This record gives sequence, structure tokens and C-alpha cells, in this order.
Amino acid sequence: MPDTPALPDPIPLARRLIQAPSVTPADAGALDVLEEALSALGFSCTRYPFGEVDNLYARLGDAAPVFCFAGHTDVVPPGAETAWTHPPFGAEIDQDLLWGRGAADMKGAIASMVAAVEAYLARHGQPRGSIAFLITGDEEGPAVNGTKKLLEAIHARGERLDHCLVGEPTNPASVGDTIKVGRRGSLNGVITVTGRQGHVAYPERADNPIPPLLALLGRLTARTLDDGAPHFQPSNLEVTSIDVGNAPHNVIPEQAAAKFNIRFNIAHQGGDLKQWIEDEAAAVRAGFNGRIALDLTVTGEAFLTDQPAFTDLLRTAVIEVTGKAPALTTGGGTSDARFIKDYCPVAEFGLVGATMHQIDERVPVGDIRQLAAIYTRILERYFVAFA
Amino acid sequence: MPDTPALPDPIPLARRLIQAPSVTPADAGALDVLEEALSALGFSCTRYPFGEVDNLYARLGDAAPVFCFAGHTDVVPPGAETAWTHPPFGAEIDQDLLWGRGAADMKGAIASMVAAVEAYLARHGQPRGSIAFLITGDEEGPAVNGTKKLLEAIHARGERLDHCLVGEPTNPASVGDTIKVGRRGSLNGVITVTGRQGHVAYPERADNPIPPLLALLGRLTARTLDDGAPHFQPSNLEVTSIDVGNAPHNVIPEQAAAKFNIRFNIAHQGGDLKQWIEDEAAAVRAGFNGRIALDLTVTGEAFLTDQPAFTDLLRTAVIEVTGKAPALTTGGGTSDARFIKDYCPVAEFGLVGATMHQIDERVPVGDIRQLAAIYTRILERYFVAFA
Repeated sequence: MPDTPALPDPIPLARRLIQAPSVTPADAGALDVLEEALSALGFSCTRYPFGEVDNLYARLGDAAPVFCFAGHTDVVPPGAETAWTHPPFGAEIDQDLLWGRGAADMKGAIASMVAAVEAYLARHGQPRGSIAFLITGDEEGPAVNGTKKLLEAIHARGERLDHCLVGEPTNPASVGDTIKVGRRGSLNGVITVTGRQGHVAYPERADNPIPPLLALLGRLTARTLDDGAPHFQPSNLEVTSIDVGNAPHNVIPEQAAAKFNIRFNIAHQGGDLKQWIEDEAAAVRAGFNGRIALDLTVTGEAFLTDQPAFTDLLRTAVIEVTGKAPALTTGGGTSDARFIKDYCPVAEFGLVGATMHQIDERVPVGDIRQLAAIYTRILERYFVAFA
Repeated sequence: MPDTPALPDPIPLARRLIQAPSVTPADAGALDVLEEALSALGFSCTRYPFGEVDNLYARLGDAAPVFCFAGHTDVVPPGAETAWTHPPFGAEIDQDLLWGRGAADMKGAIASMVAAVEAYLARHGQPRGSIAFLITGDEEGPAVNGTKKLLEAIHARGERLDHCLVGEPTNPASVGDTIKVGRRGSLNGVITVTGRQGHVAYPERADNPIPPLLALLGRLTARTLDDGAPHFQPSNLEVTSIDVGNAPHNVIPEQAAAKFNIRFNIAHQGGDLKQWIEDEAAAVRAGFNGRIALDLTVTGEAFLTDQPAFTDLLRTAVIEVTGKAPALTTGGGTSDARFIKDYCPVAEFGLVGATMHQIDERVPVGDIRQLAAIYTRILERYFVAFA
């Protein structure tokens, strides 16, 4: 490696990004800020608006391999703005912390990516390959007009990504804790049981929908889905709501509904779980006069990025900068990596997520700078290993 | 028996009572109509207003035994008045049916009681004993300012009732089907489980209140309370609502609540059932980090009027007029008999309840007249048997 010039500071760009109040699905100028920064570095930028959402694909270079940074500029709503210590879109720095909605999730990481590219170019010139940015404005929303359509669109245009790194806040406590090398799958279920209303004093003239609902939930929660899998926690089913809304004490209700979510590892596929739930519902339905309706949606399949050449490279870069050996995990919520994994190996590494989605979201400015250093080392190692 | 003059017609009084829109707790002049009719027969009438509710006690005669007719002039709301075939407070007669709110429950029966007294007096003169009316305007409401306080007040004044007949609509299909000689007890329960909110992807950082709620409901519904008792159905627990109100699919809720009702026979006492529920909650609480709160209310204990001299008399009178042998049962909802049973033997017999509390409540005018004939026979047999 040549002498390493000082890294460009990612903080000014992080602040400008936070100051654009891009509460999903609004863009509020956030992608303009990013496009301006990338264009200045020589990227060719293209917008892909879908519905009310704007998206950006940017590429520097024509050759393979293509290393792609992925992420989003939309943020969740700030909640009660008066509850914030510093205004949520003020991007103020106080006590060496950058305060604001999106500081951790994930405008800080996007600024680190841009700074890393700038550092790489300053040190090494154009890479033997390409660097891309795949940035959506619909990650915190329904994720319908975002990364999924963006990937389809650039793929149709002939773009081929070789490896992708998503800048989600993967670290629970400090930068370097955790690289995500996969994600659990997620299944949302709604059970609606319809019986026959009546008076509690005459249960024989009614069909209470609650007992079959409880029986079905009992069957679903009784199963140990698995004991975990390599890099994965055990799969888990959580009942998240049960709703009847029957005020009087003396009335048997007509309808009862429950919602649940399953986070599942690679021991399962969404279709198999759906079939299991259908079978359990059929067993309960057999003894009931009413109707049991299921609405089951698999919002993402479980996946594991089993590509040691790529994930070891990421891990080594983290160790070089932080001195810490990150765990390779798959925990937590879903992310747009679930869409990217269908196109190329994908991993995730970003800032500390402790304050994400909360009042007073904030990150140490030192973390953003350290993340820029890590991303720089990743680019350096990538174009040595894969070019 | 002497020659029996034709019965006075109860229909005009029934119509005047229905035309007073006494939707609980309003009186709307209903008690005035009744008091006027009773005063004309020589009753001494006293009003007992409690809170916003008016009540009436009337007595004819000074001697024991005191036979008391009991009931209520308040009615449940009519619902959408435009949905009625005839106006709910119009008391129209169409196709030999009297239409209106309260026709069955129980202004028709009150008119029959008054007509029966008038017939008795015409045939036999003053009874060797007394006839009383215990009429409340708070039976369909919370029943707090009604029969219970009225009984306490007249008892404090030295009134002693010997037997009481409540005019609730006891017959499922036709007049003469059923005399109620007791009622099941009723216990209302609310379970509120409070845990710790969190993200479904991180269940280890949350305490979902739904599993302990389901576990407790499972324990409560698993028990067969009994297999019935003489004159009683098996006791029964119905879960009537479960409410969480948690909209997002990815959030573990903080709180979950359920409501249930137990209708229990004389194999149980309310206090024993409360203790059992407390014990089951304690067992579930042991494995849970959050709180489980119980709100248990016994709104009435089970009772059986085991007085053949009285109930056989009622049964014989029904057979004489209708030719049908009524069943002696304890089914259905609670009534003010639960309060009266602490003062004297009480039974219930009235009109057909099929349309009570519904749009287009109505009863055959012939049923009201037949009920007046039955009540007349009861008075006649009563003052022969007990005077």
C-alpha cells in the first residue's frame, strides 16, 4: 500500500443528508445531495422513480468486478419533535455526537461510503473494476417501489453487480461488533375466525370464535420450529395481536382475529411454513361450525451469504481498523439485503443501531469517521482480491 | 269458585306503558301510568327514587301473607328506529300482535298483572292477605339503583314479602313452556397482562404479554366446572373478548387483555370460583416477568327456589289455563330475582321472550290476555293455599 493520505471527513455530507427531512416516502432533496457528491467523484447517476418514491443508481467505471454499496435515504418519522434534545432534522453536533433522524439508520453510513470512495480514488486512482451505489427512498416504507424494482430495472439495462455491502446499522454496541451475512425470513399471518353471535347465557345458540382461535394459536405456539442453524438463532413465532373488540360482558362475539409473525432461519422455507399453518387451521376447522380464514404473507425468505472469500475480506477490514473481530450473524429485522441476495452475494455492515427509530437518534462523529476508514479498507482489499 | 266474570282487557294498559319511551334509566312517565292504574284498584303507592332511577312499591291490603308481583318498566334502547316495521314506542296492533319496545320484556306482563288483580277483586273482593307490586326502572341498566335498594328500603320500613313472582319473559316459544325457579350465578372477569414492548426480531429484549394470557385462558377453559345440578345446566365459562390493539406486524405489544363470563349453578359459589381463578393466575405469573391483573366481579350467586308448595301452585295455574305442563328451569340470563331471593321465595313467569331486545319486539295480544288469566289463577290459588 502507498502512503495513506488523511481521510476526507464524512461529517459535512452526513449533516446535509440529515437536514433533508426525507421521511419515507418523501425524498426532500436527500438524493440530490447524494447525487451531487457522487457526480463530483465521477459517478454516472441515474434516477429510477417508481410511484411516489425516487431511487438512485450510480456507477463509477465500466469494468467488472462491480462492488456495490447499497442503502436508503428515507427515514422513519421523528415522532414528537418537541421530545428531541436537538431538532430531528437539525443535524447538530453536541458532545461529539451527531444528532438527528437517520444519523444511525443510515445517512451516516452513506456519507461514510462516499468518503471511502473519495479516499480510495485519492490513494489508488480509478479501481480495476467498478464501484456502484444502489440507493432507495423506500426501505422504511412498504419497500415496494424501492430496491426490488431498482434491481430489476438496472438488471434489465444489463448491469451486473458482483458483490454488495448494505450500510444498515448492524452493530449493537460499538462499530466492529457484527457483520450480517444473511437474514432470517419473515412470515406475517392474520387469522380471522367468524362464528355466530349470541348471549353468554345461551352458548348453545352461538358459536364463539374465541375457543377455535385459542386452539389454533395453541397449536402454532406449541411447536419448537428448530434449535437454530449455523449463523442463525432458533426460528421464532410471536403472536403480536389478538382483537375481538366485544364490549359487553354478556355477549358472545361473532368474530375474533389474531396476528403473528415468524422469523425463520434456513431450516425453513416460507412455503413450508404456510402449508404447516394451513394444516393446523384445517385440524381446528374440523370441529367448528364457523369459518377460519388465513392471510399469510412471506415478506422474505431466510438466506445465508456463504461466500468466505467475500465475508472474510469484510471481516479482515473491520479487524484492521477497529482491532475487533466482528461476529458474522443473521439476527435482527429484515432489510433490503433480502432482495439483493437474488442478484449477488450480499453482506451488511454499518453504524451502531442502539438509537435507531427512537427519539434522539444519534451517533458519535468518531464512529462515522471510523466507518469511512473501514469502508476504505474494504474497497482496497476488494480490488486486490477480486479484480 | 263463583262464576267467573270476563277478564278485564290488559291490552290498553300495555299500550299506554309501551307509549312511554322509558329507555333505561329514563322513566318517561311509565311509572305514572302504572301508579294511576294501581291506585284505581285501591293500592297504596310509594315512589323510591335512587340516583337517576325511579322505583315504585305498591300494596293492597294490610295482612299477611303478601304475594308480590315484581318487574321493571325500563326497556333497552330500540336501536335503529327506521329498521322497525312499526314505531318502537307506537304500541301498534297489527296482525293480532302488539308491536313495540317492552311488549315482551316486560310491559305486557305488567299490564297482565294489573288486569289479574282487577279480575281477582271483581271475583273475590279483597284478598285474605295482601298483593304488592315491586317495580323498578333499573333492570336493563346497571341494576344498582333498582330492585336491590328498593327491597332494602321497604324492608327497613317493615314490609315483609312472603312470595314473589317476577314477570320476566320466561317462555322460549309459547306461554306455558317454562317457569324459572332459580337462576345461575354470574361472574365477570377481566384479565390484563402487562409485559414489555419490543421488536419481533428481538423477542429476548421484550416480554410478550400474549403467551401468559393464552396460558391462563387455556387453564380456565380446560376445566369442566361440573356436569350440571338438579334444575340446572352445567356451569359454563365463555371468553367474550381478547384485545391487544397492536397494529404493526413487527412489534411485540406491551399489554393484552381478555374478558370472560362464567354462568354457574349451585355446585359453585362466586368466592370459590374467584379463588380458583386467582390460583391459576398465580401459577402462570410464576413464569412471567410482567404483571397479571385480575378484575373479578360476581354479579349474582346461583340459587334455586326449592319450595314445592309455591312452585307447584304456579305450575298448576299454568296447566289450568294453557293445558301445558311448564318445565321448572333455571337457564338464561340473570334477573332481579337474584336480589329478591334473599328476602322470600321467588319464581319467574311471563310472556314469550323470542323477540326481546330485538328490532320489532312484539307479542300476540292473545298471549298477554292468557298471561292475565294465568296470573289471576295464581292469585286465586295463592290466597286459598297460603291465607
